[in-house]
Order: sequence, then structure tokens, then C-alpha cells
Amino acid sequence: MSWPRWLAEQRAERERAGLQRALRPRALGEDVLDLASNDYLGLSAHPEVRAAAAGAARSWGAGSGASRLVTGTTTLHGELEAELAGFTGRPAALVCSTGYHANLSAVTALADREALIVSDAHVHASLVDAARLSRATVEAVPHNDVDAVRAALDSAGGRRAMVLAESVYSVLGDAAPLAELAGICAERGALLLVDEAHGLGVVGDGGRGLVAGLERAPHVVMTATLSKSLGAMGGAVLGSPELVEHLVNRARPFIFDTALAPAPTAGALAALRVLRDRPELPERIHLRAARLAERLGVASSTGAVLSVPMPSPQRALAAQAAAREAGVRVGCFRPPSVPDGVSRLRITAQAGIAEHAWEHAVEVLTGVVERHGGGS
Amino acid sequence: MSWPRWLAEQRAERERAGLQRALRPRALGEDVLDLASNDYLGLSAHPEVRAAAAGAARSWGAGSGASRLVTGTTTLHGELEAELAGFTGRPAALVCSTGYHANLSAVTALADREALIVSDAHVHASLVDAARLSRATVEAVPHNDVDAVRAALDSAGGRRAMVLAESVYSVLGDAAPLAELAGICAERGALLLVDEAHGLGVVGDGGRGLVAGLERAPHVVMTATLSKSLGAMGGAVLGSPELVEHLVNRARPFIFDTALAPAPTAGALAALRVLRDRPELPERIHLRAARLAERLGVASSTGAVLSVPMPSPQRALAAQAAAREAGVRVGCFRPPSVPDGVSRLRITAQAGIAEHAWEHAVEVLTGVVERHGGGS
Ligand SMILES: Cc1ncc(COP(=O)(O)O)c(C=O)c1O
Ligand SMILES: Cc1ncc(COP(=O)(O)O)c(C=O)c1O
Repeated sequence: MSWPRWLAEQRAERERAGLQRALRPRALGEDVLDLASNDYLGLSAHPEVRAAAAGAARSWGAGSGASRLVTGTTTLHGELEAELAGFTGRPAALVCSTGYHANLSAVTALADREALIVSDAHVHASLVDAARLSRATVEAVPHNDVDAVRAALDSAGGRRAMVLAESVYSVLGDAAPLAELAGICAERGALLLVDEAHGLGVVGDGGRGLVAGLERAPHVVMTATLSKSLGAMGGAVLGSPELVEHLVNRARPFIFDTALAPAPTAGALAALRVLRDRPELPERIHLRAARLAERLGVASSTGAVLSVPMPSPQRALAAQAAAREAGVRVGCFRPPSVPDGVSRLRITAQAGIAEHAWEHAVEVLTGVVERHGGGS
Repeated sequence: MSWPRWLAEQRAERERAGLQRALRPRALGEDVLDLASNDYLGLSAHPEVRAAAAGAARSWGAGSGASRLVTGTTTLHGELEAELAGFTGRPAALVCSTGYHANLSAVTALADREALIVSDAHVHASLVDAARLSRATVEAVPHNDVDAVRAALDSAGGRRAMVLAESVYSVLGDAAPLAELAGICAERGALLLVDEAHGLGVVGDGGRGLVAGLERAPHVVMTATLSKSLGAMGGAVLGSPELVEHLVNRARPFIFDTALAPAPTAGALAALRVLRDRPELPERIHLRAARLAERLGVASSTGAVLSVPMPSPQRALAAQAAAREAGVRVGCFRPPSVPDGVSRLRITAQAGIAEHAWEHAVEVLTGVVERHGGGS
């Protein structure tokens, strides 16, 4: 089939299924309450975070100039790595240019053709891609099914094995049974990779994530993003110094990629400091998420993400549009971006919105979800 | 084998081969002439570029908050896409958060199990990873071997086929025979993907890249980075509106990744405008690269990259250290980061360095390379 014809057919298929998507730029200073973003603590716009990002662009320039190993590593990267490790209680950290790069780097540098990857069915696209790219044998297990993980590891034979999970899952907002998974992995000499993209800044003691609460975790590799609760962009892999050294030498998506730019590096660092000083910010997320879940009649969330099932992709879109009309932005997830095929609104609790505005958003959403037949 | 033992063995192997690498942070205001970076035009530090990046961090915040399809697309992204397309003469553009993401996105959204990818042996790690991730059949052909590309395409049968090349290769600095490749692809209904990471801002009319010079190129997909001559970070895919729409709907490394942060987006846009206004900047790169090549006794370069073969990885490292002692930073590429196993210095011509300082760097490097047995 020719390329133009293939592209046209792919498009026609999407339109038939009602799944065609388009980019809608937002303007500066828009008058909207954003409950779609992953900037859960509102730190992207925090005065100290903005100032740090702007200051870094002024003093260091707009870019880092080269990959980390060539000349792209600045003392800013070093500072951020040390403070991320300190905050989460991990021995060492490595900053990458996106959370996607962090997952690709960690998995592909560790797992090779001789390894076994046991992957939860709901892990993020970046981990799915990472596992595929590694060329390891990949076994997907049902979501949060501890017995299935145990059975898969027991069939590993002599292979090095690695389990992939998220601390708080990105679309459904539920948590992984991390203590159990860590125990099973420790007993069997397997690594446990936990993606804290939606955990850092939100769950655990003062927003330290769920890995920080594990009893003994030398075999746990943590990945994180700087693009969500830290309000900037970038990613990180956290673990032992030996692990970090290995990644520096072997992780192609780290080695062959330009270093994270100064502004987001400094922005994430400033955000981390705000978070450290203000443990009430993650606390506020939980209060708001719990109250909103109650009003919407959906299960509460471990983290900031509320997942509201809708009767159809069309109803989900209509509800999203109605909320937007009323000044509230929420996410709308349809296949293939949902792990279980159910279209849903994805609403995130936001600590950065003022109390009265938050209450207004709750009222708007309660009405919209009810009118569109949403909720469980 | 246990994970700790495997990590230790991998490390021991690297040390035996003299290939252990470590990160060395650079400080602000270091007194060094940087001929290692890919910021060829010096635009990262250009006053207008710094100011634009800083201003965007102040007004938009440190991050974009979510993926492009959710709420991460700002009018800044739209402006940059329109101007990148306009500058390079492509109908449409899509900005990604790294050049790596741009290559992963373009290749994986287009090629699937039914497709054939014909890949030049010297393409960048991001294209190698992209081809692997796509699950297409991948045929690697010898570097710049037009007959091999033709033969591979002739064996495609009814499969959709795609050829991967760079306009200016990243390590050796040589150019691809693009006009011939484009002709061969057009005759056979294949796509040609050209990575202009080291072409944009450097080669072609006013730094428009080599794709801009192709006669008819509707079947050419261009990718680029914003992290090299544009002095910021990020990447882009450029081509038809149908291509961009397809990527928005299908490219997982685009869809499931937080949008490029405001500061690098605005920085790249400002850099693009400086480049458009000052065609003498790319011109200066060519003059400097040619003169430096002559002094070092190596082949001149199509772009900014001079590749200086060294007798061994150890001599390459020693030469790099000697240059650094004398205040000049150059890159040192050793296996596995070189396509042909030959260790080399990688020296980039820089338009942003003042004339007398540039002359000094040339003197330093001429001496260092001679003393360490380098050059062809
Ligand atoms: C669970 C999870 N991991 C990784 C990522 C990738 O992070 P980033 O957007 O910083 O590339 C995301 C979101 O984008 C995510 O939700
Ligand atoms: C040829 C080529 N393509 C793609 C990339 C990736 O671009 P980025 O560093 O912006 O991820 C690079 C360099 O890093 C490169 O040299």
C-alpha cells in the first residue's frame, strides 16, 4: 500500500471510531481552572520556581549545549541530583531530559536479551516502550496481581529479572502493592522498578513518594518525572551509585541525548525546595481529592488523580466540553489511552488553586458529571 | 547471575577496556573555549535568546503541565511550529520535547510490523532505537551506499518502506547523498526520513538545512533538534499536515510525554529568528571549519563537526586533557560511541566565539593534535 493511501485509511478509521484528536493551544492568562494538568501542587507558577527558571536561563543560557557526558552537565544538574536523592532517601540520582527518557534509560541499560521483564498491565507507555526496546523477554501480568508476579518470577530460571510498576497509576490513580512486590522481588533476587511519576510530591511522608516508605529497598530502582508535581520538565532515575554509574555508561537514551536545559533544571530544584518546606501542599491534595471523589460518587484516589468512568467516548467528550464552557478544564481519556477500554474524565486535585475557586470547580464538575451519566 | 554481580562485571569489563566514563559538571562562568558543544552558533547565550527563555519562564511558568494533547500545548508551541515550518520550507511541523523523542515519534508512528526500514549504518542512536521499537523489519546498509539502499528497496515487495539518513552525520560530520536518496525513494514510493540535527542552522541556504534544497520532496520527512544550533532543547518533525496529524494521533513518545517547557520553546523560537536575520552566522561556521581542518590536516566538513582520528582511546583522552589544560574543551569519542571503532576528537566550529579567541583555540589544537599523533 502507498504511504499516502495508508495515512488516509488510518485517518478514516480513527474518524469512524470517533477517536480523532487534535491539538488545541492555550493562550497566556486564559481564564480557566485547570484540573487536567499534572502540576498538582501548582509549583510551575510558584514565584520562586518561575524566578529560578528565569534566572537560570539568563545566567546559563537557553540550552545545555551537548549531552551530559560531553559538556552538557552543569553544577545545576549535580545540585538537583543531590537534592532529589536526599529528599527521597535514595543513595544517588541521575537526571534525564524527560520522564520518558528516564524509563527508557533505566530499563534498556539493565535488561538485555538474557533478562526477564515482568510488567504490570497498566504501566505507562514509556515503560512498555522501554521493555520492548530492551529486547528482554517481557511477560505482562494482570494489574496489581501479586500472585501473577510471583509466578512469573518463579519461572525466570537463572535469568536476571526485573518487575515494572508505578507507585500511583497515571490514569486510574490507584496504588501498587509496593511492600508486597518489594518482598517478592527481594526473595527472588529480582529488581523492582517503581515509576513515581505520579507519586513524588503527592504521596508518602511529605510527598517523598511510596518507595521512601519501603523498609529495605536496595533492590528497588525508582524513576520519577520533574514535569508533574515539580512543575518543570525532565526525569530522574534514583538508586545505588553503582546503578547510576552503569546508566551513565550504558543507557543510550541518556548518553545520546542533549542534557536537560538550565531553566527546567533550576525550576525543578526550586520546586523541590518549596515542597520540602511545605508538607501541607501534598496534604491539601488528599483533602481535595477525597472531597471531590465523594461529590462525584467515585472511588477516592491514593494520589491526585480521579478517574470518572463515562458511558461512551462521545459522552466523555461532551462532558469535557460542558465543563470547559463553565470555565473548568478536565482531561478526557479515550481508547487507546486507557488501560481497560473505558472512556473517562481524568480530573486532578490541585493544591495551587485558591479555596473559593476550588469549591466552584467542585460544583461545576458535580453537575456536569451527573448530567452526562458519569461516575461509577 | 545476580544483579549486583552483573553490574560489577559490566563495570570491570569497561575498566579493562579503558572505556569507563564519568560525568564532570561544569561551573558557571568557567574560563574555557568550548569547541565540544553543539551550540554551533553560540545562540544559547545570545542576549535575545536568553531573554526570551527567561521571559517565558516568568510569564508561563517553569513547565507545560501536561502532555500536548491534554493541556500542555501553548500558543508558544504553535508559533514555534509555524516558524520552523516556514523557515525550512516544510508544510507543517510538530515540536517534541527532545530530538530523541522526535525520531522515536516519527519512526514508530509510521513503520509497523508490515513495514521495511532501510537504515544507514551511521545513523544516530535515536534512529536505531526508533527502528527497533517500531518492530518493522530493519535492514542496515553500509554508510552512504546508494546502491545498497536501492537494492534494499527493490526487495521490499509490497511493503511500505522508509529510508533513514542524517543530512550531516553527527560524529564524522560528512553529508548524505540526499538528492540521490530522495530520487531513489520517490521512484519506489518509499519515504525518506532525514535527521537534520546537525544540518539545521549550519548547512543549506542561510542554515535552512539540506532538505530545503531538494527539488521535490513531498515524500521526505525531516526531523530536527532545537538543542544544537538553536541553542535550547527539544525536537521537531516536519512534513505534510497529514503526517503531523498522524503523529498527533499515533506517536506514543509524543502523546504520552509532557510538552516541551516554556523556556526552551521560547528560546528556540528566538534563536530561529536570530538565525533568519543573520545568514552570516552559518557562513562563519564554514570558514572556521575549513581553516581548522586545514591546520589539523583532516578532511574538511560539510557542517560544523571536525572528526580527528587518534591512534588509541588513551591518546584521544590524553589529547583532550591537554587541550583542556590549555583552556580549550573538545569532545572525545571512543567506542561504543563511534560508528567505526576509531577513537577520535570531535571538534566543532563555533560561530559565537570572538575572532582572537578562535585563533587562539586553533593554535592550541594544532599543537595538541600533532603532539598526540592525531589526524589522518
Ligand atoms: C507514569 C508515567 N511515567 C512517565 C511519564 C513520562 O514523563 P514525562 O512526561 O516527563 O516524559 C509519564 C507522563 O508523561 C507518566 O504518567
Ligand atoms: C543526529 C542526531 N539526532 C538526534 C539527536 C537527539 O537530539 P536531542 O539531543 O535533542 O535529544 C542527536 C543528538 O543528541 C543527534 O546527534
